[in-house]
Amino acid sequence: MINENFLKLPGAYLFAEIAQRVRAFKEMNPDADVISLGIGDVTQPLAPAVLEALHRAADDLASGNTFRGYGPERGYDFLKKAIVEHDFRTRGINLSEDEIFINDGAKSDTGNFQELLADDCLVAVTDPVYPVYVDSNLMAGRRIMTLPCRVENDFVPELPQTCERVNVIYLCYPNNPTGTTMSRKDLQQWVHYALEHDALIFYDAAYEAYIQTDDIPHSIYEIEDADRCAVEFHSFSKTAGFTGVRCGYTVVPHKVTAATRQGERIALNPLWNRRQSTKFNGASYLSQRAAEAIYTPEGNQQISTTINYYMDNARRMRETLTGMGFTVYGGIDAPYLWVRVPEGMTSWGFFDEMLHKAHVVCTPGSGFGLAGEGYVRLTAFGQHEATQEALERIKRCNIL
Amino acid sequence: MINENFLKLPGAYLFAEIAQRVRAFKEMNPDADVISLGIGDVTQPLAPAVLEALHRAADDLASGNTFRGYGPERGYDFLKKAIVEHDFRTRGINLSEDEIFINDGAKSDTGNFQELLADDCLVAVTDPVYPVYVDSNLMAGRRIMTLPCRVENDFVPELPQTCERVNVIYLCYPNNPTGTTMSRKDLQQWVHYALEHDALIFYDAAYEAYIQTDDIPHSIYEIEDADRCAVEFHSFSKTAGFTGVRCGYTVVPHKVTAATRQGERIALNPLWNRRQSTKFNGASYLSQRAAEAIYTPEGNQQISTTINYYMDNARRMRETLTGMGFTVYGGIDAPYLWVRVPEGMTSWGFFDEMLHKAHVVCTPGSGFGLAGEGYVRLTAFGQHEATQEALERIKRCNIL
Repeated sequence: MINENFLKLPGAYLFAEIAQRVRAFKEMNPDADVISLGIGDVTQPLAPAVLEALHRAADDLASGNTFRGYGPERGYDFLKKAIVEHDFRTRGINLSEDEIFINDGAKSDTGNFQELLADDCLVAVTDPVYPVYVDSNLMAGRRIMTLPCRVENDFVPELPQTCERVNVIYLCYPNNPTGTTMSRKDLQQWVHYALEHDALIFYDAAYEAYIQTDDIPHSIYEIEDADRCAVEFHSFSKTAGFTGVRCGYTVVPHKVTAATRQGERIALNPLWNRRQSTKFNGASYLSQRAAEAIYTPEGNQQISTTINYYMDNARRMRETLTGMGFTVYGGIDAPYLWVRVPEGMTSWGFFDEMLHKAHVVCTPGSGFGLAGEGYVRLTAFGQHEATQEALERIKRCNIL
Repeated sequence: MINENFLKLPGAYLFAEIAQRVRAFKEMNPDADVISLGIGDVTQPLAPAVLEALHRAADDLASGNTFRGYGPERGYDFLKKAIVEHDFRTRGINLSEDEIFINDGAKSDTGNFQELLADDCLVAVTDPVYPVYVDSNLMAGRRIMTLPCRVENDFVPELPQTCERVNVIYLCYPNNPTGTTMSRKDLQQWVHYALEHDALIFYDAAYEAYIQTDDIPHSIYEIEDADRCAVEFHSFSKTAGFTGVRCGYTVVPHKVTAATRQGERIALNPLWNRRQSTKFNGASYLSQRAAEAIYTPEGNQQISTTINYYMDNARRMRETLTGMGFTVYGGIDAPYLWVRVPEGMTSWGFFDEMLHKAHVVCTPGSGFGLAGEGYVRLTAFGQHEATQEALERIKRCNIL
């Protein structure tokens, strides 16, 4: 018998729907040179240090002396050590290696972590939102409460005002899709809320490497006591161009607990370990060696260069679009721009207009939630030339 | 609030428990040279064709012209084409490419596929059984019915005799852990049962490449109409030594459906696609290129050599252990041997005896289920020399 929750899901995963519309357009217009500022996929090649690590790792597997079979489900120590040291200790955050779980990409863990929750939990998500948080919970039959993020609240959600208890809140900052950030003070308020109401925070920090402004938190654990209520997801996809390599990690501090119906406190770390050792067999050895390489001085410098490359795009996009009269949010501490569509148009209407007139793909804001209607998301992950060309076409087509 | 089903699970995943006992023994006996015939992990290096493919794939990602970011969640066409052609068409099975879903290893999909089922489904598994089928269903709160596999029934389960409807049956042949096989006739009987009772079969074919005997089915789709009721899981781990590389695939034929409560038939293929595009971001590009390489003539010949190497171990183990008076099953069409422990001993007792006296690790049969009590599983994945040495120690220690 089927899990009927699947039948209540929106028809297609957002990016699959976009891909299909683009495919249809290309079939009708085989000569059109379509530029995508849509899906958040990187375009710059892997850093030389990463490439070297991949070659070395491949050679390891081809010799009897260095061959590695199944790795630890939680990930190799060499990578966990590097993470604890470089992503956290340098920011004054002390984590132990067994609070880190290496995965095959953040999408898997942001999608799977809800398995540790009871099916009748109330789940709060921002609106607009990365669809994975919502869909993965709908598949399990959970109820979703949306917290609108609009200009009026600076795209930072207000604390829930319901009498019903919220059990978990997904927060993603720098935000996908709006490209906006949360200040230390805002984040503090959310940690206080979670501790006071015995809620969990699932914090998606996939874009933290793009933060340029001082004093914007890179990790929720920069906030005192967050290690008692928050799980944090990290990705190497956008940090190091790993969208095809597949590697990321999740932080589950020992102190994070949730209650049973009887009120017993259960630590999430061993529970997640049980989940991972049952349904996952570790990330590829090659991907883990590749990730390790970004923590070397050369690797680190190389990936910074690529991040700056993308942030140059973001700056140029902001300037040009603003100059054309568009209202633009984000793009300062994140590779995403959240652009208001012309008065009287819908997100999908503007998407079609952009695709058909400028041959540029964007992501309709309404695909991220009701409060995203009237916006599109643009990504800064393109090549300089293509991004420049897209901007010129938007200008020429006079879409605004 | 916690998913309390986790609290009802057995304490640790079997192989984690074994690893811990071995670690404890090694700490007490730092000089002991422990040989593992326990976990089913390969030891032979990657085939040259695979290595070459890995290097080429790494180089692809390091150049702007050949860079690949996110791949299709269902896997790259180049790999799906090779699978459809070489694993199926050559056996007279016609599948289309969109019936294949590439994953990061069979454990993920055998663990995750149950998400498509309602939580109140009744799940039948063989006993002994690969623990993932059971634990992943227990986590979702489903009830499990066990189908004992013993000498008396040739380790092939009998059809369920209950009046309650069984919704899904997990079958794994060549079997892990017993190393035994199912004949075409037996498998036919199960397909008939499934069609007649509207049950699904989740068929784990991870070890099919080890089949030596003619007429033992490599795929359930060799049986007529199995494509109306069966999903099949394949792994490159044991076929091509990919335990560290991570790649496998799942077959979900278009014709397989399951019912809603109202009796509407729902096709599983689009549902699984929805699951995968929401919670998975595709297998590593490198791993998929590596898998593609085993379907070239050189690659195919190279992995056959490795499979023969392991099957040489299996033959030698069977002969030696039988010669020592042990009763041994399996090991003819599978890399596993299912060995009866001496009268009056338990599986864990024999495990400890083997570890402490011979410094050889086996897997206690009882870890795979009640009917596994009185057996241990030995694997043929060791190096020749180490396997030989383990056999000699077992002989010397006079454990029987």
